[in-house]
Amino acid sequence: MRQSTLFTKTRREAPSDEVSRNAQLLIRAGFVHKEMAGVYDYLPLGHRTLQKIIQVIREEMNELGAHELFLTALQDPMVWQKSGRWSDDVIDVWFKTKLQNESEIGLATTHEEPLTNVMRDHINSYKDLPCSAYQFQTKFRNELRAKSGIMRGREFVMKDLYSFCKDKEEHDAFYAKAAEAYKTIFVRLGIGDKTYFTYASGGSFSKYSHEFQTVCDAGEDTIYIDEAKGIAVNEEVYNDPEVFVASGLDKESLVQVKAAEVGNIFTLGEKFSDALSLTYTTAEGNSQNVFMGSYGIGPGRVMGTIVELLSDEKGIVWPESVAPFRYHLVSLAGNDSAVSEYADSLYEALTKAGQETLYDDRDLRAGEKFADSDLMGMPWRIVVGKNAVASGELELVNRATGEVTKITREELLAR
Amino acid sequence: MRQSTLFTKTRREAPSDEVSRNAQLLIRAGFVHKEMAGVYDYLPLGHRTLQKIIQVIREEMNELGAHELFLTALQDPMVWQKSGRWSDDVIDVWFKTKLQNESEIGLATTHEEPLTNVMRDHINSYKDLPCSAYQFQTKFRNELRAKSGIMRGREFVMKDLYSFCKDKEEHDAFYAKAAEAYKTIFVRLGIGDKTYFTYASGGSFSKYSHEFQTVCDAGEDTIYIDEAKGIAVNEEVYNDPEVFVASGLDKESLVQVKAAEVGNIFTLGEKFSDALSLTYTTAEGNSQNVFMGSYGIGPGRVMGTIVELLSDEKGIVWPESVAPFRYHLVSLAGNDSAVSEYADSLYEALTKAGQETLYDDRDLRAGEKFADSDLMGMPWRIVVGKNAVASGELELVNRATGEVTKITREELLAR
Repeated sequence: MRQSTLFTKTRREAPSDEVSRNAQLLIRAGFVHKEMAGVYDYLPLGHRTLQKIIQVIREEMNELGAHELFLTALQDPMVWQKSGRWSDDVIDVWFKTKLQNESEIGLATTHEEPLTNVMRDHINSYKDLPCSAYQFQTKFRNELRAKSGIMRGREFVMKDLYSFCKDKEEHDAFYAKAAEAYKTIFVRLGIGDKTYFTYASGGSFSKYSHEFQTVCDAGEDTIYIDEAKGIAVNEEVYNDPEVFVASGLDKESLVQVKAAEVGNIFTLGEKFSDALSLTYTTAEGNSQNVFMGSYGIGPGRVMGTIVELLSDEKGIVWPESVAPFRYHLVSLAGNDSAVSEYADSLYEALTKAGQETLYDDRDLRAGEKFADSDLMGMPWRIVVGKNAVASGELELVNRATGEVTKITREELLAR
Repeated sequence: MRQSTLFTKTRREAPSDEVSRNAQLLIRAGFVHKEMAGVYDYLPLGHRTLQKIIQVIREEMNELGAHELFLTALQDPMVWQKSGRWSDDVIDVWFKTKLQNESEIGLATTHEEPLTNVMRDHINSYKDLPCSAYQFQTKFRNELRAKSGIMRGREFVMKDLYSFCKDKEEHDAFYAKAAEAYKTIFVRLGIGDKTYFTYASGGSFSKYSHEFQTVCDAGEDTIYIDEAKGIAVNEEVYNDPEVFVASGLDKESLVQVKAAEVGNIFTLGEKFSDALSLTYTTAEGNSQNVFMGSYGIGPGRVMGTIVELLSDEKGIVWPESVAPFRYHLVSLAGNDSAVSEYADSLYEALTKAGQETLYDDRDLRAGEKFADSDLMGMPWRIVVGKNAVASGELELVNRATGEVTKITREELLAR
């Protein structure tokens, strides 16, 4: 993308009412716009980044054999009354609104009930199980406070996967596969080494649920980590002796840290299938409740966590898998048409080779361009100036380390 | 996709409360689920179809040089009060809700105001213009009645593009390019020959807006078409003599038809830039309002219109560009392992060749499989039975025409 066509501008200062570091940097870099507290627009670079995260998650969901769908935000109270979760005392973050006929409807905080209801039309027999479905859908949560930038929004995209199995045994096998998929996802997103498989409180059908917690000062949770094992215990179950039996961890060797919950997986059991009558006929001809699980990741929260975790005093540092562009090609042409022609040609060649490149073709001073480039955080900066054209050697700068490598055009294109 | 893994089931009858033909067929085929009137979930096949439509539109928007972004559904009244559109008397389909502190917020019916406000941070100078941005975002409209299936929803995904220009001249050039892009889109989506560039009522900055109307009995609009020219006049401006001057049409040669509005393009002029103070500095140093346009397409409405237009008594007929899968591979293996191995191998080969294939590997009678296949509407059905394995010849059935061609495996893979 030619930066001259990109309408977003960087800014030196974040808005004074923005208290979270992730949103401060993302607003300054032109990735997001704050609509109101906890409600952020994704501008072109932010949208590209979010889509990169979504695509990694999508690939791993498909790998699990789950099918993608898209449920609605508007919610009929009927299905929620069946599970008892329509009440504001049970879900205290409902946004509710009204149809023209004055009947009340809700905005989805989550989708267990509506999907369980959909599945009543499709699951009849044990032959229909197991199956699983996921979506990337906007959730609305009327949080009392929203001060964590894009890490906790009143409106945010969530990937939610739901599994439907015959029994606990079949569910446990899927649950284990889903946990592995989650580990793969966070490794691919560049935060694998900081993300812990964490024991947290469960429900009626399993003593514990599991969270994926990324160690990060801006996180809202406190967890106890075993760094060597990559496993942790959430504070909420830390005083339960049985969690150490279940996790195989030794309480003595754990370290207390702040962390952000980037994913969670949960055994729902028969809670929703019982409430909404989602049953199947067994091979023996009996009727049985379907055994369910749910598995969430917030792509926006992941994006915010990456910014909190990897940024430095100059700005954002995106991992390659997440960056809106791999390369930031910075032309220092000024009025030198030989340099701008060289840079144009290199941009065309990179794009043709499928290398996603943001090309700073703007008429600005080098200092401004470098400051913008550092703030926006593409993994690799390529600098093209008079020297490059004369010597045939380009400067390739690693955003994370600052390391500068001399490289020829041919080497770059073959990279 | 192996159909045995697809949890959705077809059904012989649509729900009795569903009055629209598009939703009846889409529900029967397992593409959508009705959450409530005007609110439909997209199940896996429906989601794939919608994404195909979205991808065609996206490619043409990118071709225009527009950048994709994603604005929020939750709306701050402040920006809408500036344009006077917060009032329910002006926009009578608002859904409104409240934050925990009791302050009222809205659900986006459209995004002119919030995007104009975002652009205040980014457009300063004539050098920043022209630019354009688009999104695929959910709109919420509190329609009094919603009886047109997915063609008019209370919640629906819309592609909305907004352009920002220096003046009317620059705008007119972009507007003409956008109109061409729209024509290309509807041709690519398989409804080009039924879709008319239609003169409709305008606003303060242009006498007419333009709609893209697809001739279709289920449409809600009445238009007057010139079939040879592919141009039409909406009923709402039909009695204005000047529209015939502007369109170059002869009133005598027009035919009255029902049509569905699948797209519209609109000159907004300075209406929103003036209300929200979106100005730029001209080359001469003066402050000037930005000149805007908006350009909408409802992918769900397009999908519903295609169903209305192309379905037959057996079910849906998808154009190739829109179909969730190009091929429906129907195995009639029964207990014959030679047939099922042949079909398995063909499915693998088609998938490897990048040919999107739905593989009916279920253990069902041939009649049921064919009925499902006709209802679901993939463009090409491949039938694999004992004869195919023995003779090496497959039956390729064209869903639209019913025409059967004999084809070898090699010919199919080379297709």
